[in-house]
Amino acid sequence: MDRKQVAKATTKVISSYLTYQAVQTVLAQLTETNPPLALWLRSFSGRKIVQDGEVYLLALLAESQELAFRIMTVRKQLVEDIMDDLPEMVFYEIEHQNSQHRKQQLEKLSQLSITEPNSHLESSSEQL
Amino acid sequence: MDRKQVAKATTKVISSYLTYQAVQTVLAQLTETNPPLALWLRSFSGRKIVQDGEVYLLALLAESQELAFRIMTVRKQLVEDIMDDLPEMVFYEIEHQNSQHRKQQLEKLSQLSITEPNSHLESSSEQL
Repeated sequence: MDRKQVAKATTKVISSYLTYQAVQTVLAQLTETNPPLALWLRSFSGRKIVQDGEVYLLALLAESQELAFRIMTVRKQLVEDIMDDLPEMVFYEIEHQNSQHRKQQLEKLSQLSITEPNSHLESSSEQL
Repeated sequence: MDRKQVAKATTKVISSYLTYQAVQTVLAQLTETNPPLALWLRSFSGRKIVQDGEVYLLALLAESQELAFRIMTVRKQLVEDIMDDLPEMVFYEIEHQNSQHRKQQLEKLSQLSITEPNSHLESSSEQL
């Protein structure tokens, strides 16, 4: 998969995830304002897993246009609220996790080198 | 969940998805250069689903530090390559899909109005 395809596939994943988050937001609102409808939406969303946001919305549109339109509005608000900050957050997250993994691996290797000097030499040569 | 929490959770989802994509990239490279290792990584990745990228990498680090470091490097390249374009792509994707759903729903309602004039009136009033 080239970079363009990865970007497109990632876009779909984010869009579906924000649809899932929009469903959670509407569920929380309905639990306060209209518990029976919250119950209905929870049961519907349990049957239709929000794996593909568009498939979920198409199914919901056939049952309740009002709720589907509401979720569509909320996911649009969500994307407007959070997307600008995301590139930096994802850069930082991956850089941070990578450096944590490297650090822990080094610590593990240096502990091995104290207890088993030979295995340390093997591990070091593996890295070259 | 407030906006900050949604942004954090979305960051985790993107990070794990890019780890999955990095695994696919390394698998494709190894299939060309080292088929037995590709087979091993495919089997390992089948057993450890890349649902949480960090859990997957921790497990892989214990088995093959070299492959884990390689996947970490590739996911960092991926995030550098695609993240800047993503906000606009996700904005567009959600706006486009929302407008498609609304358009199709209108078309469905107007078809109903041709075949069943009464149900059209009911549908129209429901939307008010």
